[in-house]
Amino acid sequence: MALDFRPVFFIVGVLLTILSVAMLLPAVVDAAGNNPDWKVFLAASGLTLFVGVSMVLTSGGQEMRLGVREAFVLTTLSWVAITAFAALPFLLADLSLSFTDAFFEAMSGVTTTGATVIQNLQTVPPGILLWRALLQWLGGIGIIVMAIAILPMLQVGGMQLFRTESSDRSEKVLPRAAQLANAVGSIYVALTAICAASYWIAGMPGFDAVAHAMTTIATGGFSTRDESVGFFDNAAVDWIAVVFMIFGSLPFVLYLQVVRGRPLMLLRDAQVQWFLAVVITLVVIVTMLLSARSTLTADEALRLSAFNTVSIITGTGYATAAFDQWGPFASVIFFLIMFVGGCAGSTTCGIKIFRIQVLASTAASQIKQLLSPHGVFIPYYNRRPIEQDVAMSVLSFFFFYVLIFVALTVLLGVLGLDFKTALSGAASAISNVGPGLGETIGPAVNYMDVPNGAKWVLATGMLLGRLELFTILVLFIPAFWRA
Amino acid sequence: MALDFRPVFFIVGVLLTILSVAMLLPAVVDAAGNNPDWKVFLAASGLTLFVGVSMVLTSGGQEMRLGVREAFVLTTLSWVAITAFAALPFLLADLSLSFTDAFFEAMSGVTTTGATVIQNLQTVPPGILLWRALLQWLGGIGIIVMAIAILPMLQVGGMQLFRTESSDRSEKVLPRAAQLANAVGSIYVALTAICAASYWIAGMPGFDAVAHAMTTIATGGFSTRDESVGFFDNAAVDWIAVVFMIFGSLPFVLYLQVVRGRPLMLLRDAQVQWFLAVVITLVVIVTMLLSARSTLTADEALRLSAFNTVSIITGTGYATAAFDQWGPFASVIFFLIMFVGGCAGSTTCGIKIFRIQVLASTAASQIKQLLSPHGVFIPYYNRRPIEQDVAMSVLSFFFFYVLIFVALTVLLGVLGLDFKTALSGAASAISNVGPGLGETIGPAVNYMDVPNGAKWVLATGMLLGRLELFTILVLFIPAFWRA
Repeated sequence: MALDFRPVFFIVGVLLTILSVAMLLPAVVDAAGNNPDWKVFLAASGLTLFVGVSMVLTSGGQEMRLGVREAFVLTTLSWVAITAFAALPFLLADLSLSFTDAFFEAMSGVTTTGATVIQNLQTVPPGILLWRALLQWLGGIGIIVMAIAILPMLQVGGMQLFRTESSDRSEKVLPRAAQLANAVGSIYVALTAICAASYWIAGMPGFDAVAHAMTTIATGGFSTRDESVGFFDNAAVDWIAVVFMIFGSLPFVLYLQVVRGRPLMLLRDAQVQWFLAVVITLVVIVTMLLSARSTLTADEALRLSAFNTVSIITGTGYATAAFDQWGPFASVIFFLIMFVGGCAGSTTCGIKIFRIQVLASTAASQIKQLLSPHGVFIPYYNRRPIEQDVAMSVLSFFFFYVLIFVALTVLLGVLGLDFKTALSGAASAISNVGPGLGETIGPAVNYMDVPNGAKWVLATGMLLGRLELFTILVLFIPAFWRA
Repeated sequence: MALDFRPVFFIVGVLLTILSVAMLLPAVVDAAGNNPDWKVFLAASGLTLFVGVSMVLTSGGQEMRLGVREAFVLTTLSWVAITAFAALPFLLADLSLSFTDAFFEAMSGVTTTGATVIQNLQTVPPGILLWRALLQWLGGIGIIVMAIAILPMLQVGGMQLFRTESSDRSEKVLPRAAQLANAVGSIYVALTAICAASYWIAGMPGFDAVAHAMTTIATGGFSTRDESVGFFDNAAVDWIAVVFMIFGSLPFVLYLQVVRGRPLMLLRDAQVQWFLAVVITLVVIVTMLLSARSTLTADEALRLSAFNTVSIITGTGYATAAFDQWGPFASVIFFLIMFVGGCAGSTTCGIKIFRIQVLASTAASQIKQLLSPHGVFIPYYNRRPIEQDVAMSVLSFFFFYVLIFVALTVLLGVLGLDFKTALSGAASAISNVGPGLGETIGPAVNYMDVPNGAKWVLATGMLLGRLELFTILVLFIPAFWRA
């Protein structure tokens, strides 16, 4: 059957229209502050609205059918189109950003990565700061909806584990997705509001509180300050961030259960249990290593370690210290935890906890198989047996994750980045973390000085990671486009 | 059934007896050169012989049965026991090596890794230099025999692909293995002799030619000089090394076909084809990158690139240049190719080409599956379908390879090694390469200055890599030791 692009264009058109409305928020903020940038946002909004509405009008009307192939095209195309239009304000505003820089910043925003090419953030107009936060916030809810509604249907990288009645392979996916998106969206808004209020009560200025709340819950990591959250040097702020970064890393559908009076459903989930266990173990280890090599009090060491470890493992990317300078162990550990990520159905990226569980369980049963070649050893996830096709899917995902990480690293190396920058940059991009390690892209600096070619490689890595690799890779099979 | 350790002890005893005889060679060389070290080798030989013969006498006699579990224990125990006794000459000779250093050097030898803690090799007595070469040479033939006879029976990491009539799961494995080992052993000896003669004709002194031939064909990498093969600065020597490192990386059973008049069998093998294609591609890329960043002639660039690229991808570990100083691309590329390795049934380590083929083929069929969820896509290897259990086995091997690499890296980082040293050291150990990257363990230096704890971590990594991980990991399942 030939690909039917009309529903794809229709939905991309709707998303661009939403984006154009979102651009009015920074326009209002800048206008209220007498900042001429409001014109930039209004112009960008107008252009985006025009394209969005045109797409809706020219492709809507008839009955919509969204097949599997159309859903793949839709996913990639919507993310790229949104990024391209989201880059407009960065390009048009008085930031002297090249097209490469503007696209990089927008991609880093919508993928909730948090790598930035903008310096002296305190001198940047509030409209732009709000736009960066908004992009991550919209990207965060966008990926949750996608993980709930689209990915299980596409059976990408083991996501079929999370197939529910609401994500059958059927053509009625979209109305149901809208319903679920509504419920989860309300929770997302509520968590953001509570986070913002908490920051504000803890002493953050109102604007910073709102902007940081948006990028905390989205595990995005854009800050309003060059020094990131470290600027505020406020223990309460740090711990609030830790709590809400973790909230952003848990499966949002389970919050629906909490709201419906079944809070234990959250803690009984295997993903949540493992994620919390991994985070606590890592924070304890990093705290001990940091204490052993510094004169910090136990309190200070715990605060620094908890904040920065949670920031990196969740892929948020805030920093309250140049943690890569904590000694040799720190570079190695922070590099490796970049790959982990949070739970499926959260705003985090990375390999994700459930895949690590499936990998560990499958690999363990392989070892048992060696011992009793004729025995049958079935791996389990969340107290249920893992079907062989899910195991294969997750194992293949892992292979592609490593393969694409390797390809990104080689490209970055050939483009002139040194060993540490190339490896940590590739890891940070594919896992949507934000900072890398070292003197070029470490937590104390930004991506300004990275060569242009490398910025495109990194932006591609961010998109691949955000869309769970397969969603994009499948577009490269010739058979995809045939007939 | 209870584990029967008698056949295990019997075979380990036989191997130690062989080792004790091997120790007489350096004793003779040192005695001929009036070097007092001959006493060291004689003493070590006597002790090893005593232990070996005792083990044979106390455990032999009855009928032998070697079950799967006994084969696992045998594999690990024999490698550890040989390393421990092989370390004796290093410990007793006048090299001022600690027990850690001596064990590290012996492990690096028998696993054909090639990392060394001995400096000023030109001042070291010839007996010790010959002992280092002998260890790698024996380790090389040992691993080929193991890959032919034991690993396919143990179904380790996809090695069941290479199960033949001579490696059935039967109790008659050992006599057949001995037969095959004989044939392959003759070829191994012949290739070593041709390699030594070629080096000598090209201008290497006789002793160096023999020592290097042994460590070339074993893809081991121990040299008789601190500057490695670069010391000789001889283009013919470099190219001879390239050819014989590649010979050491091909499946030795296929040489039997060549000898039997079917030379095309070698080139028709999927592993061989891919391996050669990968090597040629990489050499071309590295040559181009090196030319672009230096004033070398095309000739010189090709020679340097071919030698050092082949040395690292095959896990030999010779160097004719501090290749990690060739610019940022070089560190990244040389780090990544450490993982590749050669063909199954060769002397190389690493993930190995056939696994990369199985991984790529399986992952590709997973992507096709996404597109047609109800289609059936069967991955192929060497023009034959890959059974699902083989695919699972290889995918799990890959996961464990990454997992153990990560664990080694973390331990090295916590023990104080910097980012580049920790990552490249872990990669070099698990893949039995030899040199790492950077100022501590790079190709221009050695492992002398690595902390003792890290040396044990690295030695463990070498053993895990050499025995294909699973052989050792299986010993850690409680069920292994039960009943």
